Amino acid sequence: MIDAALTFHDATHRFAGGTDTPRAYLERCLETMAAREPVVRAWVVTNETAAREAADASTQRWRDGRALSAIDGMPVGIKDLLETRDMPTQMGCPAYRGNFPRRDNAAVWALRQAGAVVLGKTVTTELGGAHPGPTTNPFDQRRTPGGSSSGSAAAVGAGMVPAALGTQVGGSVIRPASYCGNVALKPTQGGLNRGERQATSMSTTGVHAGSIEDMWQVAIEIARRAGGDPGRPGLVGPPTPPPARRPAVLGVMETEGWGALDPASKRAFEQVVDRLRAAGVTVLRRTDHPMLDAFEAALVGVQAMTSAITGWENHWLFRNLVAQDENAISARSRAVLAAAERMTPEDYRLRLLQREEVRRRHAALAPVVDALIAPASPGPAPLWAGDVPGQTLVPRPTGDAVFNTPSSGIGAPAVTIPLTTVGGMPMGIQVMAQVEMDAQATAIARWMLETIPPVVA
Amino acid sequence: MIDAALTFHDATHRFAGGTDTPRAYLERCLETMAAREPVVRAWVVTNETAAREAADASTQRWRDGRALSAIDGMPVGIKDLLETRDMPTQMGCPAYRGNFPRRDNAAVWALRQAGAVVLGKTVTTELGGAHPGPTTNPFDQRRTPGGSSSGSAAAVGAGMVPAALGTQVGGSVIRPASYCGNVALKPTQGGLNRGERQATSMSTTGVHAGSIEDMWQVAIEIARRAGGDPGRPGLVGPPTPPPARRPAVLGVMETEGWGALDPASKRAFEQVVDRLRAAGVTVLRRTDHPMLDAFEAALVGVQAMTSAITGWENHWLFRNLVAQDENAISARSRAVLAAAERMTPEDYRLRLLQREEVRRRHAALAPVVDALIAPASPGPAPLWAGDVPGQTLVPRPTGDAVFNTPSSGIGAPAVTIPLTTVGGMPMGIQVMAQVEMDAQATAIARWMLETIPPVVA
Repeated sequence: MIDAALTFHDATHRFAGGTDTPRAYLERCLETMAAREPVVRAWVVTNETAAREAADASTQRWRDGRALSAIDGMPVGIKDLLETRDMPTQMGCPAYRGNFPRRDNAAVWALRQAGAVVLGKTVTTELGGAHPGPTTNPFDQRRTPGGSSSGSAAAVGAGMVPAALGTQVGGSVIRPASYCGNVALKPTQGGLNRGERQATSMSTTGVHAGSIEDMWQVAIEIARRAGGDPGRPGLVGPPTPPPARRPAVLGVMETEGWGALDPASKRAFEQVVDRLRAAGVTVLRRTDHPMLDAFEAALVGVQAMTSAITGWENHWLFRNLVAQDENAISARSRAVLAAAERMTPEDYRLRLLQREEVRRRHAALAPVVDALIAPASPGPAPLWAGDVPGQTLVPRPTGDAVFNTPSSGIGAPAVTIPLTTVGGMPMGIQVMAQVEMDAQATAIARWMLETIPPVVA
Repeated sequence: MIDAALTFHDATHRFAGGTDTPRAYLERCLETMAAREPVVRAWVVTNETAAREAADASTQRWRDGRALSAIDGMPVGIKDLLETRDMPTQMGCPAYRGNFPRRDNAAVWALRQAGAVVLGKTVTTELGGAHPGPTTNPFDQRRTPGGSSSGSAAAVGAGMVPAALGTQVGGSVIRPASYCGNVALKPTQGGLNRGERQATSMSTTGVHAGSIEDMWQVAIEIARRAGGDPGRPGLVGPPTPPPARRPAVLGVMETEGWGALDPASKRAFEQVVDRLRAAGVTVLRRTDHPMLDAFEAALVGVQAMTSAITGWENHWLFRNLVAQDENAISARSRAVLAAAERMTPEDYRLRLLQREEVRRRHAALAPVVDALIAPASPGPAPLWAGDVPGQTLVPRPTGDAVFNTPSSGIGAPAVTIPLTTVGGMPMGIQVMAQVEMDAQATAIARWMLETIPPVVA
């Protein structure tokens, strides 16, 4: 799967040598887009004129030996929750139709400063929630690309761009990346400056990419220019991709989702564990260590916890929108609002205490394992044929975030790599490290990609 | 000074009894505004039509015995950094001229839910920074009202409204409240949901009022409906104003500003200390306790620290604005940007470590003092005649935040009360408590207001 992905880091030497140019690279992306987009539908809007101008300027910089960064000239997609000064930001939501604030989100601004070519806005589920957009899975159009970063994952998965920005509150970067065969980083919460998108406490800007090198480079170029969220240190790590690092000890994180994992996906994951052991890594299961078991015990209910926290944090915004127009948000989002409005401030505070306990138990694993591994989603992308009028709404049309809510709730970094194929579809394996240890998660994931043979189940 | 202030909490029994109405209350506010506004210039824009409609609806609710809250019908001003669905939000900044997002900030939404009458937007310094708006001090038009919540403080000080929302990053609620004779609460950072205004780590939505009862009631009605910032417990405390509470031990916080305090202001503050002691309160000075001295030692440089942190956190936004139009922000704000752009991410991280140390030393005072007291500003409002073209820009035309940056940096709650008059102008005394202990700061401040005779120096 990964072999088909588009990479940028290995093209720049050609830009420097004059045998390729960022403009030509962009045109190849546009060709792929022309071929795949009618079915994949990853993009809400593109600005090809501005992209070509930016690519030409980059071409000139590489020619002159004054590239702005290692990602100068890289075409990127931006999830349509993040503002861009030259394109609308409509958030997949009727209430924001035509919304055009004409300013760049912090991360978008940083990407432009680094010379990246902002090609367009990618489809998001409505306001980053459950209600899906039109995007299909690039490996099977009958399946969901995942959400909420549907378009970013699909655009990278289809090879239209080498990288794209997504955001995760529950499982919105890692899950769609898993379904679309991406590499992706959901950084430590607050690692990349969210700019105006700071409405919820778990939301995190992340990076989808076709390679781990591009993934890291995009993230660190943003962090170097726009920093992290206010009050947070921002993504810490080397200015170039961390070298592969073999872990001594990994822990398996089962989460609440373990029981619901289908047999083929479980088999694929266990084969990865076997191959890690064969490569000399100690892999601990929850029965092997009481602290790991205590952590798993705290994960029971985390799915509901993260939903409740995010629902509450969004509820004044949702209510405000609905007060102006009942149809400003979808029926799915109105149901989320109704659930949040049944909560009290004390309910919310108790959820925060629960979250703190999960964080403490994860932090206690620092001396026990170098990182945790888990499936990045409960199997490959599920089938999704769209809502049927008059029938009950499917609650999770873009899939289940049960393997992602732990890292979201904890605020810990997670990297997914497309290490398994299940029933012909990609399924990611994620590496989750301690808070602020994004470079370690990346280094271990890189080692796994380079060392562990892909599993086909 | 406080006697002239407008109060609301003592009017509602008349609304219930039918001898007064929210509409009549509003009309009295509008009369005061008509008389004072031409000189005070507290408002950017008002929506009197909508305010009268809201007041009429409130009148009907009180008549029917179904008032939405204790602040149903209260006319309020909203600092023009906070979005309002029926008025533009221009932030005192050329870049936001005509900006009209047609949505309510979380706190504004909560106020409307509680029945408050949103009368208008009050003047802010540019983007909450140093560059002043046109507002004058309601007690002397040659003087600044303080900033950045200039209009909110002046509107309350002039008796145009009983309460108004402000925001503080350095000293933007407590300082103008001190200069304008207000009572004000700068809550624990994150205590009141900032909604879309979460760009900096120290910004905090606060309340200006003519009485401590209205101050608390406005704050708690917001917190009950919109909660605190995402991930924070939100303002915790009773649903009605906390009763006065006599402290056993108070500590004097000198800050870096002590040496620069003018003799009359220092004399006034020392008289407050004498009167507290006469009322049986133990008042510790830094020489009385090593932990208090250690805290003061950590405050050296806090003014520069808070400026650096906020400058860095704002710098991508400022750069983004300037990139589109050199004159999108004032020369003062461009100087702030230039200073921030001389920082590296590591500089910022080191400032965060410094802030953590100040927080730790303040937390260590919890068993030592019930609260800290300090002047709320370095003297009464300074003279300010406006910028003179061609001359060097005065760096702090709305006054010095040196007595406010400790509570801002720590994120601790501060309440100011107009307990002293210096040279005919009000000067506030602030009470600062531990993080989340907003109700305690309020209860102690209330006791001081009710017990300590005002000082005239």
